[in-house]
Amino acid sequence: MDKALAAKQLEAVLKQASAYTGKGSVASYIPELAKEDPGQLGVSICLPDGTLLSAGDADVRFTLQSISKIFSLIIALCQNGQKQVFERVGKEPTGDPFNSIIKLETIKPHKPLNPMINAGAIAVAGMIQGKNIEERLNSIVDMLRKMTGNPSICVNEAVYCSEKRTADRNRALAWFLKDSGILTTDVEETLDLYFQHCAIEVTAKDVARMGMVLAADGINPQTGERYVPEEVARICKTFMVTCGMYNASGEFAIDVGIPAKSGVAGGIMATVPHKMGIGVFGPTLDDKGNSVAGVELLRLLSQEWKLGIF
Amino acid sequence: MDKALAAKQLEAVLKQASAYTGKGSVASYIPELAKEDPGQLGVSICLPDGTLLSAGDADVRFTLQSISKIFSLIIALCQNGQKQVFERVGKEPTGDPFNSIIKLETIKPHKPLNPMINAGAIAVAGMIQGKNIEERLNSIVDMLRKMTGNPSICVNEAVYCSEKRTADRNRALAWFLKDSGILTTDVEETLDLYFQHCAIEVTAKDVARMGMVLAADGINPQTGERYVPEEVARICKTFMVTCGMYNASGEFAIDVGIPAKSGVAGGIMATVPHKMGIGVFGPTLDDKGNSVAGVELLRLLSQEWKLGIF
Amino acid sequence: MDKALAAKQLEAVLKQASAYTGKGSVASYIPELAKEDPGQLGVSICLPDGTLLSAGDADVRFTLQSISKIFSLIIALCQNGQKQVFERVGKEPTGDPFNSIIKLETIKPHKPLNPMINAGAIAVAGMIQGKNIEERLNSIVDMLRKMTGNPSICVNEAVYCSEKRTADRNRALAWFLKDSGILTTDVEETLDLYFQHCAIEVTAKDVARMGMVLAADGINPQTGERYVPEEVARICKTFMVTCGMYNASGEFAIDVGIPAKSGVAGGIMATVPHKMGIGVFGPTLDDKGNSVAGVELLRLLSQEWKLGIF
Amino acid sequence: MDKALAAKQLEAVLKQASAYTGKGSVASYIPELAKEDPGQLGVSICLPDGTLLSAGDADVRFTLQSISKIFSLIIALCQNGQKQVFERVGKEPTGDPFNSIIKLETIKPHKPLNPMINAGAIAVAGMIQGKNIEERLNSIVDMLRKMTGNPSICVNEAVYCSEKRTADRNRALAWFLKDSGILTTDVEETLDLYFQHCAIEVTAKDVARMGMVLAADGINPQTGERYVPEEVARICKTFMVTCGMYNASGEFAIDVGIPAKSGVAGGIMATVPHKMGIGVFGPTLDDKGNSVAGVELLRLLSQEWKLGIF
Repeated sequence: MDKALAAKQLEAVLKQASAYTGKGSVASYIPELAKEDPGQLGVSICLPDGTLLSAGDADVRFTLQSISKIFSLIIALCQNGQKQVFERVGKEPTGDPFNSIIKLETIKPHKPLNPMINAGAIAVAGMIQGKNIEERLNSIVDMLRKMTGNPSICVNEAVYCSEKRTADRNRALAWFLKDSGILTTDVEETLDLYFQHCAIEVTAKDVARMGMVLAADGINPQTGERYVPEEVARICKTFMVTCGMYNASGEFAIDVGIPAKSGVAGGIMATVPHKMGIGVFGPTLDDKGNSVAGVELLRLLSQEWKLGIF
Repeated sequence: MDKALAAKQLEAVLKQASAYTGKGSVASYIPELAKEDPGQLGVSICLPDGTLLSAGDADVRFTLQSISKIFSLIIALCQNGQKQVFERVGKEPTGDPFNSIIKLETIKPHKPLNPMINAGAIAVAGMIQGKNIEERLNSIVDMLRKMTGNPSICVNEAVYCSEKRTADRNRALAWFLKDSGILTTDVEETLDLYFQHCAIEVTAKDVARMGMVLAADGINPQTGERYVPEEVARICKTFMVTCGMYNASGEFAIDVGIPAKSGVAGGIMATVPHKMGIGVFGPTLDDKGNSVAGVELLRLLSQEWKLGIF
Repeated sequence: MDKALAAKQLEAVLKQASAYTGKGSVASYIPELAKEDPGQLGVSICLPDGTLLSAGDADVRFTLQSISKIFSLIIALCQNGQKQVFERVGKEPTGDPFNSIIKLETIKPHKPLNPMINAGAIAVAGMIQGKNIEERLNSIVDMLRKMTGNPSICVNEAVYCSEKRTADRNRALAWFLKDSGILTTDVEETLDLYFQHCAIEVTAKDVARMGMVLAADGINPQTGERYVPEEVARICKTFMVTCGMYNASGEFAIDVGIPAKSGVAGGIMATVPHKMGIGVFGPTLDDKGNSVAGVELLRLLSQEWKLGIF
Repeated sequence: MDKALAAKQLEAVLKQASAYTGKGSVASYIPELAKEDPGQLGVSICLPDGTLLSAGDADVRFTLQSISKIFSLIIALCQNGQKQVFERVGKEPTGDPFNSIIKLETIKPHKPLNPMINAGAIAVAGMIQGKNIEERLNSIVDMLRKMTGNPSICVNEAVYCSEKRTADRNRALAWFLKDSGILTTDVEETLDLYFQHCAIEVTAKDVARMGMVLAADGINPQTGERYVPEEVARICKTFMVTCGMYNASGEFAIDVGIPAKSGVAGGIMATVPHKMGIGVFGPTLDDKGNSVAGVELLRLLSQEWKLGIF
């Protein structure tokens, strides 16, 4: 890969995708997110040798939101093993919106269909062990600091508090899970952990580095240090394909073809196996909850560089 | 009506219906209710002149459970008026189980279809005014004491606590309503009121007297004292026909034809316009949540005395 | 009842309700119905002595549409008995639109919840016996001719053909029923019978007379001639309350309180037990499929004459 | 790849997976399929150089059933282009059983979520062009003959007729699509085409060759002859990952990780990009409709040879 050329292409793609920032709107249901400047768009690419290529608002901080579901799943899998985790959360895409409660009632047993929808991620949060919320949260934050080499990664308290105040639908999901026996920990504490890991603040550069670790099957390809077991990294990448982009995952798989996970703050973490991690930030969302310009940017990039895995 | 004959017939019908006590099972999801002796069956009839005809376990105390939804609705309608109440809860039967959450998501606007399902009754509880839970609860208890002339009616604390501990599905419903803006009061406080009014303890005799008040369009037919506005009594009786027996209401309307409301403790309050109130208690339930023997008893009685309104 | 006064009041109520004709729109999914003049409104009342009081467009002919579901149910019950009929169709209101297919899949066993929704009425049509479609249809038409004393009642061929050409959703329902074993007769033949009985043409006066027969428990109150068994008439009136006005039945029961069945051609048949039958015709419909002005007219009339049964 | 070793490993894996043939049951809803010997299991692997490695019942003929949905989609995409096809059928996994009708009503617009569920495949069949059914069917059969080099591939008339007689649920789906305007061709003709392409008869060897063509991005890797446009092959492989194994696709993606499509006759076509096509046949199915032993065989093979794409 000619890095100078790649940097230029990245700038061009960013420019082209910028036209899409006006097509969606910033998340309104979390007041703190609603303040975001809709015109922003940033991308960063992390290569196996650690090189970062970036364009646009790659240093703007945003919260992981649903991207964090990948990392809470990693911790839960490491602490409990596949067998226990998948007894309480399934592996199937749903075709429903991320906050839907219907299938919790219609599907028997009442377990969330996958860990990428809110209900599933709340169930996963309930499986993260630690002697208190702080310790449980730190298991996620510490891993992210290591993966990114950025020790300043932490929770955005304002977003966390905003989320906590307005998350009544998530409370409904959590109590339903409690009633079904899927969630066995304290509901408000578990939600607290969930809201906090959603509010972890990063930049597109951080996200690119996280994506690179998954692309390298769980290691830092420069140092060989392992952060995520290979098997767990594989599971995460699979979920990113089948359920990573909410109920537009199928479309994204066909149109872009890269394992990716989005969040309603406008971030997307994409992972091109053995080649690169990609972090994108563009806060205007489509009706499914994905960054409009971010998806377009990844589509263009995938086309330009033939990144699709299919 | 020949009262001596009626008393005899009542005994015969009770005996016949007793065979059905073994066909269902006592409510298991509230531990305190699960302790109930399944063989019990009692009935009491209150005539316009105040006469009570009773048979079987008519003095056994049980909790109102869903029967109380009628009385919380009465208070909410009296305090807020029809317009405000029906902005937050509909008037339609659902075809779904009483604790279903699906239609809260699928129906737009997200308001509960009627006040007889749990979601609707929780919304109603949120509309009962008072400076604290105690005052709000008392508005219901006081009315019931007046209607029955029984000043000792009160909440069964053991059942209330049992219910409160195991009501996570109701919490899910309440938080969903909170998220939709249907519930604007504090969730746990509102649930507390809901659990307490469900746990009000009565006998079949008390319930017969309550049913007689509704049968007399809201007054005590002996004294002429009014407890419920005529219009509100009419609305309640209509709901008892269309939604009073959970998702077996349509069947009950055809097979029995009397406005009635059941509860999962095994009680049924029935109302034969201008003729009588009926209280039934039989704790074994069918799969919809209605007293098996109680429904059979009312069917036989309706047939024997031609009580159906259709 | 002072008939002269009643006639005047009827005129006044019709005038007042006429204001609502502009609030809905005529059924568009059956092309032939879409041609209807939206400004029309007519009402006719049949008293036990046979007197007809009418106002407005009481002589305009329109097709029964869903009102016919009452009469196909009568024939099916007479020919097969309750036990057999209710093995294939339930007795519960649904909370869903009349042409919904969802509950056919979600409810076990897969039988339609009631005979007033399309799926249920198609199942009922499959239970009407006869050596061919003509004979099966005639069992309905003959009964209507007798009930109304109008030997010219027959199918409107243009509407029937229009309906047949555009009824693909009904075909979907019928094949689903076939697959579930609920429908055992030929699908297209059964639909043909269903479309034809929906397209039976009447006036508000005819409908008033039909309603009077049900109000008189199945007989012509002047001659004592029985057209419908008492038990069957009772079942029909019950269904009219719980499911007669599509998924606005609960609201209608509270706001109007009279057993009634509507059709998408704008007709409503109402039945005030022992007092009167009412036929209404107003072709503009609300979003549930009920005549807007017709419902308002019945509401005013019920209020004026205290006709509610609750 | 050491072919002798591979052949041995294949035998071992087949033997191990054979233990699972007893765990499911053969499809019962198509009578002709119910006759199948449940103990069968066969596998064939086609390498880029055309080598076939086979074990077990690799020469037993079975019908493609849902595997054919991949090939009808190919023809429809080639004839109409992506834009037109995806206006009528979506790209999202559903989380529902393959013959579910619910989302056709709940999702707006009413288009099937993807072309791998029955509703979607029927919509696709409606887009295959030709002057009659025979010509339309031949476009599929001809392609399969070329891809496999087997000119004798044709429809199994007994299975086709059996399917046609018992496919009322599919008729319901088709009429729903007709009503929604998704299907614009004649319903019975379209279903006829659908039933026929489902009843195309093949062996595991044929299927392995088909899978190899998709693995080679649409060409015969030996001759370079192109049968499927690269872009279309990519789309198919993506659908195989997200929706190929009914509502167990997510689980299969994690546990096996190979693009695959199953059918209720017990066949599975799997595609390992650039490496191999795999055909499996094992007629006992799990409750989702996938070959129990076939899935196990692929899981073992994927593990042994590290075939997963994630």
